[in-house]
Amino acid sequence: MAEPAASEDQIARLRLIRSENVGPITYFQLIARFGSAGAALAAIPDLAARGGGRSPKLASRASVEREIEQVARMGARYLFLGQGLYPPLLAELETAPPALVVKGHLSLLDRTGVAMVGARNASAAACRFARMLACRLGEAQVVIVSGLARGIDSAAHDGALETGTIAVVAGGVDVFYPPENEARQRAIAERGLLVAEAPPGVEPRARHFPWRNRIIAGLAHGTVVVEAAPKSGSLITARCAAELGREVMAVPGSPLDPRAQGCNQLIREGATLVQTADDVLEAISPLRVRPFRQRELDYVAPAASADPGEEDRRAVSGLLGATAVPVDELIRQSGLPPATVSTILLEMELAGRLERHAGGRVSLA
Amino acid sequence: MAEPAASEDQIARLRLIRSENVGPITYFQLIARFGSAGAALAAIPDLAARGGGRSPKLASRASVEREIEQVARMGARYLFLGQGLYPPLLAELETAPPALVVKGHLSLLDRTGVAMVGARNASAAACRFARMLACRLGEAQVVIVSGLARGIDSAAHDGALETGTIAVVAGGVDVFYPPENEARQRAIAERGLLVAEAPPGVEPRARHFPWRNRIIAGLAHGTVVVEAAPKSGSLITARCAAELGREVMAVPGSPLDPRAQGCNQLIREGATLVQTADDVLEAISPLRVRPFRQRELDYVAPAASADPGEEDRRAVSGLLGATAVPVDELIRQSGLPPATVSTILLEMELAGRLERHAGGRVSLA
Repeated sequence: MAEPAASEDQIARLRLIRSENVGPITYFQLIARFGSAGAALAAIPDLAARGGGRSPKLASRASVEREIEQVARMGARYLFLGQGLYPPLLAELETAPPALVVKGHLSLLDRTGVAMVGARNASAAACRFARMLACRLGEAQVVIVSGLARGIDSAAHDGALETGTIAVVAGGVDVFYPPENEARQRAIAERGLLVAEAPPGVEPRARHFPWRNRIIAGLAHGTVVVEAAPKSGSLITARCAAELGREVMAVPGSPLDPRAQGCNQLIREGATLVQTADDVLEAISPLRVRPFRQRELDYVAPAASADPGEEDRRAVSGLLGATAVPVDELIRQSGLPPATVSTILLEMELAGRLERHAGGRVSLA
Repeated sequence: MAEPAASEDQIARLRLIRSENVGPITYFQLIARFGSAGAALAAIPDLAARGGGRSPKLASRASVEREIEQVARMGARYLFLGQGLYPPLLAELETAPPALVVKGHLSLLDRTGVAMVGARNASAAACRFARMLACRLGEAQVVIVSGLARGIDSAAHDGALETGTIAVVAGGVDVFYPPENEARQRAIAERGLLVAEAPPGVEPRARHFPWRNRIIAGLAHGTVVVEAAPKSGSLITARCAAELGREVMAVPGSPLDPRAQGCNQLIREGATLVQTADDVLEAISPLRVRPFRQRELDYVAPAASADPGEEDRRAVSGLLGATAVPVDELIRQSGLPPATVSTILLEMELAGRLERHAGGRVSLA
């Protein structure tokens, strides 16, 4: 099936999100401020100058057209936030990816999803358990979402390959990582659904994985953690799910098993202990009929806020350091209007001087 | 140390609780109705006749005096509910034992107690875990209460033998059960505290064990379950603890391990997942300063309730069957005043026609 040619607006959206120093938050703020991706692209150089840096490198029209062609050639397609088939549950995230590259059966996005994540070095017993759990959930028409990592992720995908599974990869949909999962990744593209935030060809780097985890949690009604050590990536996914108000579930284990401690800790913190597919189905059932809070992209430029003065910029910049602080805290401590702080951070980010972290926190880059 | 001679009232109390068909509930109702154990003993034959049976066999003065002598000879002593050193936490039970036989260090009753119970056929790893947990809790001045069974109970006692442990046995303090625990039972009588509801010489029977479990839970600020199958006796102890408003804690395990399923289920139902002694100490800490609801024995005869009529007796008796029903339900369905239903049940119990079960339920005997 031929991919319909991208609209001018979609080309501009891709250029914006593929530009240097533009993440989802900056993207949304630019759209909200300038009304469209095209207008935002035009405004960036000036903003960056005010942020105290050179203009970030903007993605060229030619590079984005090459990407669109590549995506079409590999039989993949785009989903744009707020349009068409973009998954409403994922759209709820404050950091929802503005564009996704997907390959496979889009109809899987229409079913109740459960994320299953866990240790890459999980025990054989835990992997078998994860595969069985995924299989039982699949029989109950639940789609299994995971991250195609070694261990639990792979087992979960395998268990649900027949019934429906979605793999969210940290790099491009055409990059096989880990390498030994190539056959699995191909099988999921064929029979399930591959989802990537990155354009094709991107090799995943360490910083991509926590970012990717928010998409796994965001696509699912609930997240089940199977065997996870404390401070592991699986717990980041669980935290994302909790922040989204989704169900967090964990499979317990003996306190003598270090690989169970993350799960046991989650349960202590309020996650639902699950032992069977029925436990999972029971936990997510209220969500099945939950009305989605569909995120609306605000394309109408808001009332122009007073442009920040140099003094305001110094005040905010002075409050920032290497340690990430919540934006709310900056607003409180600076005493400036939220819109002003937001604009200053936007300028700084575009100038490459600001880094955004999970949970609405920022630090100097 | 010579045991002080028992008072006349204590002799009457022992005669009453050692009499046929008199359990703690009946005991309290008789005391409340007749003002003293002595008066209750005198009233029983008449009550039983009205309950439709012959008088229960009353414990003779001679037999109780022999028991008192035996208890003194073995270096044990009595604790009577509402008097002296009787543990206030245990006194909170609706079914608090009217008299306990204890042997060992009574000062242990004065410290914060945690019950540790679990499977008799527990895994070696779980037994080692239980021993370590008891040891750590002991180092924190917590007394470990358990039931001297095989498996987890034995491990818990062993871990706390140095620091303080209380064993509640289902038979007499001088009966070694299970036989292989004789040395352990002797060691606890020497260095810890042995507690029995039964008089010396009584061999434990199956029905004694669930009854005994309420004392384990009742003596402790919280109960930790380590490895327990569903429907096991350990879960009865946990349920008793929950009904008493005490902290229920469970050590999780893999869903693949059948011996972990009882614990995992408890956690699903709201028990606190514990992995370490610190987790246990944290869970019970609010209780350490909790004001005790000291149970007062009501020795003043209440306003004489209207004696039940024959029709009332038939109504209540007609509602009873082989399946245990809550007394509240009998009151609701019969439409009779609670005092009347209570008197009818008392008469029937003394006549040997009624059996009392956990949770305030009754059935035909």
